[in-house]
Amino acid sequence: MERRFSKTIERAQTSAVRDILKLTQSSKVVSFAGGLPAEDSFPTEAIRDAYERVFARGKGAMQYGVTEGVPALREWLTGFLADKGIGTSVDRLLLTTGSQQAIDLAFRVLIDPGDVLLVERPTYLAALQSLSLADGRAVEVDSDDEGMLPDDLEAKLRTHRPKAVYVIPTFSNPVGKTWSSERRRALAELARKYGALVIEDDPYGDIRFDAANRIQTLYEHDAALGAASGDDGNALYLGSFSKTVAPALRTGFAAGPADVLRMMAKAKQASDLHSSAADQLALLELVTGWDLAGHIGFIRDMYRERMEGFVAALKGGPLDRLRWNRPAGGMFLWASLPETYVAADLLKLAVEEGVAFVPGEPFYAGVPARNTLRLNFTHTPPALVPEALARLSRAIERYSVEVYS
Amino acid sequence: MERRFSKTIERAQTSAVRDILKLTQSSKVVSFAGGLPAEDSFPTEAIRDAYERVFARGKGAMQYGVTEGVPALREWLTGFLADKGIGTSVDRLLLTTGSQQAIDLAFRVLIDPGDVLLVERPTYLAALQSLSLADGRAVEVDSDDEGMLPDDLEAKLRTHRPKAVYVIPTFSNPVGKTWSSERRRALAELARKYGALVIEDDPYGDIRFDAANRIQTLYEHDAALGAASGDDGNALYLGSFSKTVAPALRTGFAAGPADVLRMMAKAKQASDLHSSAADQLALLELVTGWDLAGHIGFIRDMYRERMEGFVAALKGGPLDRLRWNRPAGGMFLWASLPETYVAADLLKLAVEEGVAFVPGEPFYAGVPARNTLRLNFTHTPPALVPEALARLSRAIERYSVEVYS
Repeated sequence: MERRFSKTIERAQTSAVRDILKLTQSSKVVSFAGGLPAEDSFPTEAIRDAYERVFARGKGAMQYGVTEGVPALREWLTGFLADKGIGTSVDRLLLTTGSQQAIDLAFRVLIDPGDVLLVERPTYLAALQSLSLADGRAVEVDSDDEGMLPDDLEAKLRTHRPKAVYVIPTFSNPVGKTWSSERRRALAELARKYGALVIEDDPYGDIRFDAANRIQTLYEHDAALGAASGDDGNALYLGSFSKTVAPALRTGFAAGPADVLRMMAKAKQASDLHSSAADQLALLELVTGWDLAGHIGFIRDMYRERMEGFVAALKGGPLDRLRWNRPAGGMFLWASLPETYVAADLLKLAVEEGVAFVPGEPFYAGVPARNTLRLNFTHTPPALVPEALARLSRAIERYSVEVYS
Repeated sequence: MERRFSKTIERAQTSAVRDILKLTQSSKVVSFAGGLPAEDSFPTEAIRDAYERVFARGKGAMQYGVTEGVPALREWLTGFLADKGIGTSVDRLLLTTGSQQAIDLAFRVLIDPGDVLLVERPTYLAALQSLSLADGRAVEVDSDDEGMLPDDLEAKLRTHRPKAVYVIPTFSNPVGKTWSSERRRALAELARKYGALVIEDDPYGDIRFDAANRIQTLYEHDAALGAASGDDGNALYLGSFSKTVAPALRTGFAAGPADVLRMMAKAKQASDLHSSAADQLALLELVTGWDLAGHIGFIRDMYRERMEGFVAALKGGPLDRLRWNRPAGGMFLWASLPETYVAADLLKLAVEEGVAFVPGEPFYAGVPARNTLRLNFTHTPPALVPEALARLSRAIERYSVEVYS
C-alpha cells in the first residue's frame, strides 16, 4: 500500500548510536558506544522501597495527574536546584519523560519550519533529531575546549537572529568538555543582546569528578545579568535523574522563564497529557527518604575511577595515534584519529576485533570531522577495559595497514 | 523580555477540560467534567506486587531500554490483541506514554503543515490539540448515531485527499457512541479507495457493558479487506491501559502497518527515547501473574451500574430538557439542551450550584453545537450523583429564568 508520510519524518535519520547498539548485541563485542550509566550505580533497593511507599498512600496516587508533573516533586526540586544556585519555583518547572522530552518540547514551542537553532560543533545527536522533526535548521558555532567562540557566536546571532542557542556546557555529550566561566558569561550576554533564548542541557552536571569544584551554570550567569532589572530570565535549564538515579524512571525536567514553561506545558498536554505519575511519586519518596547527595557522591567516585582506569589503558602502540582530553566529569571521552582516518571505517574493523564505539560524524550538524569518535567509560566493567582497548589498538593497526597499504 | 514562540504553540489552546478541572478543585463542586476512571477500580495491591517483582529481577531492569518498548510486554500484547481479533506482531507494536502519545506520534509522522485530517463531528479534544501542534487542519465529517455518513465521508475524501481519517468508533469520547458494523466497513473501504490511513483510537473498547456483544474493530474490518492481497493493512489501532489498569502507569500502544510503526518509532526516539521501562515492566508482571480479563469484567460491572444509576437520576423537571442516548460502554454520556441554550453559560450557574460538566463546544473542529455537554459517569461516587443532578436541575431552571426572562 502506498503511504504518504510527513516531509520531516521521511527525512529523519534513526540514531546512529542506537543502530550501532543493535549491531553490538553480541556478547563478544565490548561496547563503548552507548551513553549508558553503570548498572552497579542503580539504587535498586531504595527504588523498590520508594514504590512500596507510593502504594501505601492509597489508590488516589494511581489517578491521572497534572501535565506539569507531581506538585510535591516539583516543590522538592526547587530546593534541590536552589542548592546548585538555580533559583526557580513550582510553577516554573515541568517534569518530563527524561530530559530528551524537555529538549523536544522546547523545540516544539520555539521552532517554526526553517528556523535556525545555534548549536555547538559537535553537539548531542538526539537534539539534532528533535530539531529536524520540528523542521528547524541547526547552524554550528565554532567551538574550542572552552566553549563557543564569542566572535563566531555573535556573527551567527547577527546573521540568523535565531530564537535560541542550544548547548551542553558541562561535561558535554559527545565531547566531555566543560565550558569556562568567561565563555558562559559571553553566551549569556550575547543571547540577551540578540534576543535568543539560552537552552542549557545539563544531564551530566552532577557527575563532576572534583566534587569541590562547583561550576556555575549558564542559568546562573543569565540570572545574574537579569538580577538588576528583576526580569524572569533568558535561560531554560534541562536536567534529568536518569544518570543519578536510574534511566528506567524516565524523569527529567525543565526550569526557566514562566512564559516558556507555560508554552511547554501546553505542548506536553497535547503530547502525552503527563509523564508517569507512578515514577514521579516513587522518585519523590526516594529523594525525601534517602541520601541522594551521598548517592551522587558514590557515582562520582565510581565514574572517576572508571575514567582514570580507562585513560590509563588508552595508551601505547597504535592507541597513541588517538588524541583526547581527560574529562572533568560526565560519561564520555572524545578522541581524534589522524586527519585522514575515517572513524566509521575503523568501526567495522573494531567490531570484527570485538569492540565498538560511536563515530563522531552524526554529532555534526555541518561538515563532519570524520576522524573523531566517542568513547563511553561508565558502562563497561573495568576488568574488561584493558582487553577491549587492546582490541581497539589492533583495529587501528589493521586500519593503517589495510587502508594505507 | 520579548519572546518569540512557534506559530503553532502561540495558536494552541489549553484543554478546556483541564481548565475546568482547575476551577472545580473546590470539594463542594461535584464534577462530571473529567474523563477520570473510578479510583475504586485501580488494582493497587496487584500493581504494588508487580513492581516488587520487577525489582527482584535485578538492576538491569532499571537501564535504558529500546524505543519501541519492553519486548516481552509487546510479545504479551500480541496475544492480548489476538484475543480481540487484532492480528499483529512484536515489530508492529509501539509502546507509548498513554494513547495520547500514540495519537501525537501518528500525527507527527503523517501531517505536514496545512494537511487535512478527517475527524468525526464532534471528536476527542486532545486529538485536535495534537493536530494543531502539527499545524494540520481538521475537517469534520457529518455523523449520526451509527458513525460517519458514507456520502459525506467520500465527498470529503475526494475533495481533500487526506493522509488519514481519525475516529473513535467504540464508546467514543465525547459522545459515548458505537459505530455500526456497516459504517465501519464503509470507512475501511473508502479509506483504502482514497489512500487515507484509518486511525482507530480505542481507549474504551474493553469497557463494554454487554460483555457478550463483541464489537469488530475497524482494524479487523480493514484486515478483512486486505486478506486476499496479503497486504500489511491500512489501519492504525491505538489502545491504552489507563482505563483498565491505572492512568498513573501511562502505558498505551499503537499497532498497525510496519512502515507506519517504523516511522512512529523514529519520531518517538527524538521525542523521549522511550517511555518508562519501570512502568512497562510492572505492567508485564501484572498482566502475566494476574487475571486481567477478570478485572476488566469487574470494571465493566462497576461502570454499567454507575451508568444505570446516573441515567435513572437524569430525569424529572428541568432535566427533561436534556436529550441523551444511553451508552453501550465507555465513560461518557453526551447531552443536548434545547437549541437556543449555551452550555458554557449554563456551566457558570452549575458551578455556583455545585456541579460541573464540560460544554461540548471545544470538541468541535468546525462550527460548534453550543447547546451540547459531556457528562462523565464513572468517577463520581454513586451516592453523590442524585444530589449533583439535582444541582444541575436547579442550574437549568435558573438558566431559563435568567436568560429568557
